[in-house]
Amino acid sequence: MLEQFKVPEDIAVHVQEDALRETVTSVFKKMGVNDADSELATDVLVKADMRGVETHGVSNMLRSYVSGYGSGELNNDPNWRITRETPATANIDSDRGLGIIVTPKAMEIAIEKAKNVGVGMVTIHNSRHLGMASYHAMMALEHDQIGLCVTSCPPGVLPTFGAEPRLGTNPIAVAAPADKEPPFVFDAATSTVAGNKLGLARRLGNKLYPGWVADADGIPLMEEVDPPTPGYEGRASSFLLPVGGNRESGSHKGYGLACIVDILGGILSGGGFGMVPGRPNFGHMVAAYNIEAFMDTAEFKRTMDDFLRMLRETTPAPGHARVLFPGLPESEEEEARAEHGIPFHPEVIEWFQDITSELDIPYNLT
Amino acid sequence: MLEQFKVPEDIAVHVQEDALRETVTSVFKKMGVNDADSELATDVLVKADMRGVETHGVSNMLRSYVSGYGSGELNNDPNWRITRETPATANIDSDRGLGIIVTPKAMEIAIEKAKNVGVGMVTIHNSRHLGMASYHAMMALEHDQIGLCVTSCPPGVLPTFGAEPRLGTNPIAVAAPADKEPPFVFDAATSTVAGNKLGLARRLGNKLYPGWVADADGIPLMEEVDPPTPGYEGRASSFLLPVGGNRESGSHKGYGLACIVDILGGILSGGGFGMVPGRPNFGHMVAAYNIEAFMDTAEFKRTMDDFLRMLRETTPAPGHARVLFPGLPESEEEEARAEHGIPFHPEVIEWFQDITSELDIPYNLT
Repeated sequence: MLEQFKVPEDIAVHVQEDALRETVTSVFKKMGVNDADSELATDVLVKADMRGVETHGVSNMLRSYVSGYGSGELNNDPNWRITRETPATANIDSDRGLGIIVTPKAMEIAIEKAKNVGVGMVTIHNSRHLGMASYHAMMALEHDQIGLCVTSCPPGVLPTFGAEPRLGTNPIAVAAPADKEPPFVFDAATSTVAGNKLGLARRLGNKLYPGWVADADGIPLMEEVDPPTPGYEGRASSFLLPVGGNRESGSHKGYGLACIVDILGGILSGGGFGMVPGRPNFGHMVAAYNIEAFMDTAEFKRTMDDFLRMLRETTPAPGHARVLFPGLPESEEEEARAEHGIPFHPEVIEWFQDITSELDIPYNLT
Repeated sequence: MLEQFKVPEDIAVHVQEDALRETVTSVFKKMGVNDADSELATDVLVKADMRGVETHGVSNMLRSYVSGYGSGELNNDPNWRITRETPATANIDSDRGLGIIVTPKAMEIAIEKAKNVGVGMVTIHNSRHLGMASYHAMMALEHDQIGLCVTSCPPGVLPTFGAEPRLGTNPIAVAAPADKEPPFVFDAATSTVAGNKLGLARRLGNKLYPGWVADADGIPLMEEVDPPTPGYEGRASSFLLPVGGNRESGSHKGYGLACIVDILGGILSGGGFGMVPGRPNFGHMVAAYNIEAFMDTAEFKRTMDDFLRMLRETTPAPGHARVLFPGLPESEEEEARAEHGIPFHPEVIEWFQDITSELDIPYNLT
C-alpha cells in the first residue's frame, strides 16, 4: 500500500480482531442475515482488515452493506441456486445476495469440482459486492489448489482513447500455495488505482500520480496532480484510467484486461457487462485448479518457494529497501495486526459507536 | 500498433499471403519438419503477419526458428506426450518441439475436454517459442468456446522495486466470440512493451515512452527517452518494466500478472519458471471454456456484440478518431492485407532471397 493511504500512527485507534469480529457479526445478524452467513461475511471483511486491505475491509465497506440491507437493495435471505452445471462448471443466480456471502459458497463448489475433474469454474450473476477478491481465491490454498476470482463492476474507467467511462475497476485475484514462503496472493484492480483509493486521496488531499485519472475531456493526466485541479474535481471523479495510463505507456493492456473480467465475470454469467443499463450491479467468476491434476504437489510448492525467494532476494533499485512479491506484505501485515490490533481512523470508531447504538448492539471495540 | 513500428509505406514491399505460405512451408520442410506440421507452423506465423502482429510473424521469428533447428536446439521431430491427465486437464512434455507446432495440439485437447466437461486446461513443459499467443486462444472461437493462452518466457523484466530482471515479458491472450462484431482478441505482454518492440525502436532510432525501461540501476524512466541515453544502451536493453512503469503508476499490477503467467505457464507445467537456471526456455498454458456449459451461446454472442459495439462507439478523447476494442484493428488489418498483401521491410525480402537460395527453394515472393 502506498504510504499516503495509511492511517497516520498518531491518530490510529487499534482494535483487536476478536472484538471486531463480534461486533461485525452482530451487525449482520441485525440486518436479518442468518448466523452462519453473518459469521462468513464477517470473516471476509475482517480478513481484509487483518491483511491491511482497508479499501475492502470493515471501515470502507460495512456501512454501504448496512445501507444496502436497509434499502432492500441487498437480499438478506437469498435463495441462491445453480442455473446450469457440468462436471467442471456451474453458473449461480445469487438472488441479490451479497457477494461476500455467496461467492465463498461458489468457490466451495469450484474446489469440489477441481478435486473431481481437475478444474472448477463457477460464474455468479444477479449478485452484489464480493469484498476482497483474493479472499475467495485464497480458499483454494488449503486444498492444494490455485484459486482465481474476478468481478465485473459498475463502470468508472475510460477505455483507451475514450472520453466516457465504460468499464469497472474489474479486479483480478489469483492465489497459489508455496511450501515455506507465504502464499502468492495477487489482488488488483485493472485500473491504475482502485476507485475508493481515489476517494481516499481526495478526502486526505493527497496528490495523484501519473496515469491515475483523465481530465474532464478524457485526456490522460500523465503528470502528478495536486488536487484540486480540473480533471480531478467533479466529473473526473469517475474518470479512472486503465493501468498503463495512456496508449504509449500501455493502457491498452489494462483496458483489455478489464474487458476480460467483464466477459468472464459478467457476460459469461448471463448477467451482462458492467455498462448494461439497469444491470443489478455485480457479476463474478471464481475458479480452482487442482495442482495434483498437472504435477506432483510437493514439487510445485518447492518450486514456488524457489520462485518467491528469488523475487524477494532481488537486488533492490536505489531508494528501496527490498523487493516484495504479491501476498508478502499482506502476510506480514496480518502477523503484525494479530499482535497489535487493526489501526482504524477515529472516524471509523465514531461510526461504530453510532451504529452499535442505533442497532442496540453492545459496543466493545475500545 | 504504435505508428512508429509500422514499415514506412514508401519502402514497403507487398507480399501475397499464398506465396508467403508456400515459401514458409518449404522452409520448415527443409528443416526436417513433417508436411502437416510445416503447414501448421506456417499458419501460426502467417496469421500473425496477416493480423499486423509483425513482432510474432514471419519477418521477426522465422530466422530464429531456422537457426534453432540448425543448431539442434529445436527438435524437428518431437515425440511430445501427455505426462498427466484428468477429465479437465493435461500436462504435456513437448520434447523440445517448437511451441508454434505443439501448442495448437494442446489447444485441441483443451477444446475437446471443454466439450466434454465444460473446461479444458493444458500445460506444456520442455517447449519453445509459441509465436503469437492469441493464435492458440482463437482456436476456441469456431467451437463457441473462450480461449486462453499464456507463456512463461526467459527473464528480461524488472520486478517492482528491483534492479535485476526476474520475469519474462510473459504475455496473456484471451479470445471470445461475438455474433456480428469481430471476435474479442486480447494479446499482450505483461511488460509495458514487448522485448522485440524495444529492439525495433532501437534499430529505427525511435524514442521510448514513459514506463518502458529502467536505467542501468533499475530506476524506472518515467519520461520520454530519446535514444541513445544511459539506461537505454547496453545493459538496459534487458531492463524492461512491468506495465504501469513504477509503483506509483501501478507497476505492481504488471509485475503480479507476469508472476501469474510464470506460475500457470511455467511452474504448474513442471518445467519451472523463467529464471530457473538452465530451464530450456518456454512453458505454456492453454485453456478453453465451453460457453454452453455456463449459459445459452447465442445469448452470449449477442451480449458480446452489445459490449463490443458500446466500446467501439464510445465518444473519443480529443486527438483520437475512435475507440478500439482488442481484436478490432487486427481484424481490419487482416481484411486489408488479404486484399493488398503484407507490407514487408526490404531487409526481410533480402533475407528471404538469401535463405531460399541457401536452402534451394524457389523464390516466389516478388
